[in-house]
Amino acid sequence: MTKIFNDPAQFAEEQLAGFCDLYADRLSAVPGGVVAHHAEEPQVAVVIGGGSGHYPAFCGTVGPGLAAGAVVGNIFTSPSATQAYNVARAADRGRGVIFSFGNYAGDNMNFGIAARRLADDGIDARIVVVTDDIASADEPERRRGIAGDFTVFKIMGAAAARGLDIDEVERLGRAANDATRSLGVAFSGCTMPGADEPLFSVPEGQLGLGLGIHGEPGIRDIDMLPAGELAELLVNDLLAATPEGAGTRVTAILNGLGTTKYEELFLLWGHVARLLRERGLEIVEPEVGELVTSLDMGGCSLTLMWLDAELEPLWRADAYTPAYRKEAAPLAGLRPPAAEAAGEGQAAAAEPASPAGVRAGEAFAEAIRAAADMITTQEAELGRIDAIAGDGDHGRGMVRGLRAAVAAIDAAPTDSGIASLSALAGRAWADHAGGTSGVLWGAALEAFGRSLDQSAAEITPTDVAAAARSFVDEIAELGGARPGDKTLLDASYPFVDELDTRLAAGDDLAGAWAAAAASARAAAEATADLRPQVGRARPLAEKSLGHPDAGAVSMAMILTTVADVLADRGDTQQQPDQEARDE
Amino acid sequence: MTKIFNDPAQFAEEQLAGFCDLYADRLSAVPGGVVAHHAEEPQVAVVIGGGSGHYPAFCGTVGPGLAAGAVVGNIFTSPSATQAYNVARAADRGRGVIFSFGNYAGDNMNFGIAARRLADDGIDARIVVVTDDIASADEPERRRGIAGDFTVFKIMGAAAARGLDIDEVERLGRAANDATRSLGVAFSGCTMPGADEPLFSVPEGQLGLGLGIHGEPGIRDIDMLPAGELAELLVNDLLAATPEGAGTRVTAILNGLGTTKYEELFLLWGHVARLLRERGLEIVEPEVGELVTSLDMGGCSLTLMWLDAELEPLWRADAYTPAYRKEAAPLAGLRPPAAEAAGEGQAAAAEPASPAGVRAGEAFAEAIRAAADMITTQEAELGRIDAIAGDGDHGRGMVRGLRAAVAAIDAAPTDSGIASLSALAGRAWADHAGGTSGVLWGAALEAFGRSLDQSAAEITPTDVAAAARSFVDEIAELGGARPGDKTLLDASYPFVDELDTRLAAGDDLAGAWAAAAASARAAAEATADLRPQVGRARPLAEKSLGHPDAGAVSMAMILTTVADVLADRGDTQQQPDQEARDE
Repeated sequence: MTKIFNDPAQFAEEQLAGFCDLYADRLSAVPGGVVAHHAEEPQVAVVIGGGSGHYPAFCGTVGPGLAAGAVVGNIFTSPSATQAYNVARAADRGRGVIFSFGNYAGDNMNFGIAARRLADDGIDARIVVVTDDIASADEPERRRGIAGDFTVFKIMGAAAARGLDIDEVERLGRAANDATRSLGVAFSGCTMPGADEPLFSVPEGQLGLGLGIHGEPGIRDIDMLPAGELAELLVNDLLAATPEGAGTRVTAILNGLGTTKYEELFLLWGHVARLLRERGLEIVEPEVGELVTSLDMGGCSLTLMWLDAELEPLWRADAYTPAYRKEAAPLAGLRPPAAEAAGEGQAAAAEPASPAGVRAGEAFAEAIRAAADMITTQEAELGRIDAIAGDGDHGRGMVRGLRAAVAAIDAAPTDSGIASLSALAGRAWADHAGGTSGVLWGAALEAFGRSLDQSAAEITPTDVAAAARSFVDEIAELGGARPGDKTLLDASYPFVDELDTRLAAGDDLAGAWAAAAASARAAAEATADLRPQVGRARPLAEKSLGHPDAGAVSMAMILTTVADVLADRGDTQQQPDQEARDE
Repeated sequence: MTKIFNDPAQFAEEQLAGFCDLYADRLSAVPGGVVAHHAEEPQVAVVIGGGSGHYPAFCGTVGPGLAAGAVVGNIFTSPSATQAYNVARAADRGRGVIFSFGNYAGDNMNFGIAARRLADDGIDARIVVVTDDIASADEPERRRGIAGDFTVFKIMGAAAARGLDIDEVERLGRAANDATRSLGVAFSGCTMPGADEPLFSVPEGQLGLGLGIHGEPGIRDIDMLPAGELAELLVNDLLAATPEGAGTRVTAILNGLGTTKYEELFLLWGHVARLLRERGLEIVEPEVGELVTSLDMGGCSLTLMWLDAELEPLWRADAYTPAYRKEAAPLAGLRPPAAEAAGEGQAAAAEPASPAGVRAGEAFAEAIRAAADMITTQEAELGRIDAIAGDGDHGRGMVRGLRAAVAAIDAAPTDSGIASLSALAGRAWADHAGGTSGVLWGAALEAFGRSLDQSAAEITPTDVAAAARSFVDEIAELGGARPGDKTLLDASYPFVDELDTRLAAGDDLAGAWAAAAASARAAAEATADLRPQVGRARPLAEKSLGHPDAGAVSMAMILTTVADVLADRGDTQQQPDQEARDE
């Protein structure tokens, strides 16, 4: 819906004034429209125009290599003959004027009258109407001009820029129009500035096939289609209207009508391009974006222009206008990235691992697998806790992250050490879990691995505790939260503190870890009394009071599972070190 | 609302694939994003990124003079550290990598991890976050990056293209960020592909001041403002945040968020530019358009970057990317149109008029004045007739056209002949009446004038009848309608036929005209039996059966009024010719 205006009746004039202020270095306002600043060598003046509301049609495509002037009418209203005459007088450089526009009744009349007035003044004035919209009529000469306006303007602008005479520019413009076909679809109508109701609309869930850019009736309304099917519809109908004698080289415009976004057009383009190639067409320098719009209308149109030896170089020629700029020079000599660099980044070569490093890696792998199994059973419960004051996806994210970590570990060489496995598991977790907790868990596992020397003869419980602290510090540093902010840190710090305390008191790793995990569980439950400080909107923060933080709960759950794994493997893991010391 | 997709979960990847297909001649897809094809001389790689849904941020601004690569996350979601790492590896040319992005938590984490991994590989990796949104936090370092992303990217891209080293590029990027301030307003929220509900919304009739590009809370909601006041709000708040020590040269970006159209932005820009100049600022090469969007969100943001001797040439430097292209060369040496040509087209010098031509002109002027008075009294009735199967503006249009014609006649020299006055009246009518009937009446009056030689010693009734036929033929030719199509032609042809018949039978002009006007009235009433053939949608055509055509009715009314004028002046107009012949 059009929102920015002062007096709606002055919308067209006011927006044109702003446009002319913005581009004052390259075009001038004249009564009735705009005229591009010109090169020294006189050229045939291609003067385009129509109503406002179609930007960049028409004033946005005025400049070197394109139109010499644009006549700017009121919204969706033909400019008057006097406007067209005035713009043409200002644009004429003594080599004649060609008016070009979209075959609407008002435009035909007014530009026709202006051409006659120019002829009375002794100025050679021609008219090339654009008739690309195959949905608008069966007889080609009765068809409307839509985004195919642009191909015709571009060909004539390039021909004029080459210094061709008016007969040639006119002939090439007609050839471009004969070679151009468009078909549009509308998803929603548009609203005039200041209007309460849309000018026209499309039934919800439907698309208007062939609906015109002012709401002119189309072919029929049909159910909205997925992008792939929409591409097929447009391509099939357009190719059925292939001009006689057409070759296999085409250019294409996938044009957005107003509120259809560039990402949507790119997505559709992927399918359109594939289909065109499947049908044996070679696509030359296509354009995807807004070239002829209709205020805030939703929808798009596909235009094809079949190229020949005359049209192709003119289509490829440089142009430089407010809304359309094409220059060959900046792209000349550029090179694609080396194939090696463009491939998936290689993991750094793994550090060799000692037998102790490999044994620690086995314990790590077992712990991750056990955690994945446990969290899978707890996914729904974690989701329930998270949904109280969040989006409820915490359980899902943890499952995804842990499964990715398990897959990465399974794919690693069997002699991998604990540092290598932590790095692989962390990266996989971060890449697949999504969300902040996934990034934090992933980075924390990497930090854990970095802290350990897997080539050392021994990995002591103190080494493991130091690595656990690195794990927690990484979460604090990356996430920017502090203890008490109601995050997973509130379970993590009590864990590492208790782990250090117990190890210092002489406990073995399994015993110390079990005690520390109990601290983590208690601390996680205690987060119910906390108010979230980061990453939550205020109303959600209030809701969370009385309930624990899901991230702290899952942290405590996993630390507990790891404690069970360590207890089960306890003797086998600690024994060798003990034995070594006993010797 | 996002309409074009297949599987919503695949939207981000599918649109990126289409984008990469479209621009395969200048960039390459790599795992995690895109990398621009590079020049031979190695440059510092500026790698930008963030979630999808913000096009042209981020992949649309990759290319010569701007970013070397873009990391492309899922919609509104940070890319992973591995994505950022992979793109950076592919973009690095041995001179280091600078990551730049908008200071969102996920981006900070993931790009931070990627930078550390690059450092592990021996690649010099830096980070420059953008913090331009003054609404997002009081402390500058906690602010979000919005459209000011672009100014920072542009400055660093230009610095890298100049071959500067990584320390310099980083320093200039930080300087650009320090010099940049933005403030946005949202009119409506946005909808994720496939979602039934908007992700967030703005209350109808309100604007969200400072609302973030993912719906982050802003400063406050206020009533929607007219464009002039909106410009004041944005300019005032931004200037209140002017950086310390800033000069008077600035560049500006007026950025559209998605569904706010270019015409709206141009209109607003006219006010913003005026205000900035009034505050003593000089605006250097501003940009108005979409640079950082938010799916189909409605709204806009204003960004200012205060320039100094270092930043200004970098801002002005060439760049050539899919969505942003700036080249100095195509504009070099262009000249504005000659001041004379740019002025309002001069009416051709009037042909001198004979006494007979002046007398006929007086009669013409009297007839037009009388018609204007009469139609003013009939405006409502004509509107009523037109509303049955049209938009009901026929009476209004006729009043506007006739009043403009009277004003043109009043402004003409007193010795003007009938041809001059017809031309002036016709042009004024066409320019001011609006609509098809205005164009037709205007052109027809011009044709009437062209048909008469106002310098002749005598203007005979036959001359007038021939001019009347030119009038009608012009309507037929321009409008493309035929008798029986239910248009004003259905009153006009019976008129000229009867006029010819009566004059041939020896009637004087006033008598013949009166009889012909009676034929026109009868024919206008008879159009009630006709079905419209042109310019009406089918349902309206059905409605019109049983009612006369408003254009035919007004034509008959005016011809009748002219008959009365001729009858009143009859002797004085015809007498001199009679006397001359008697002599």
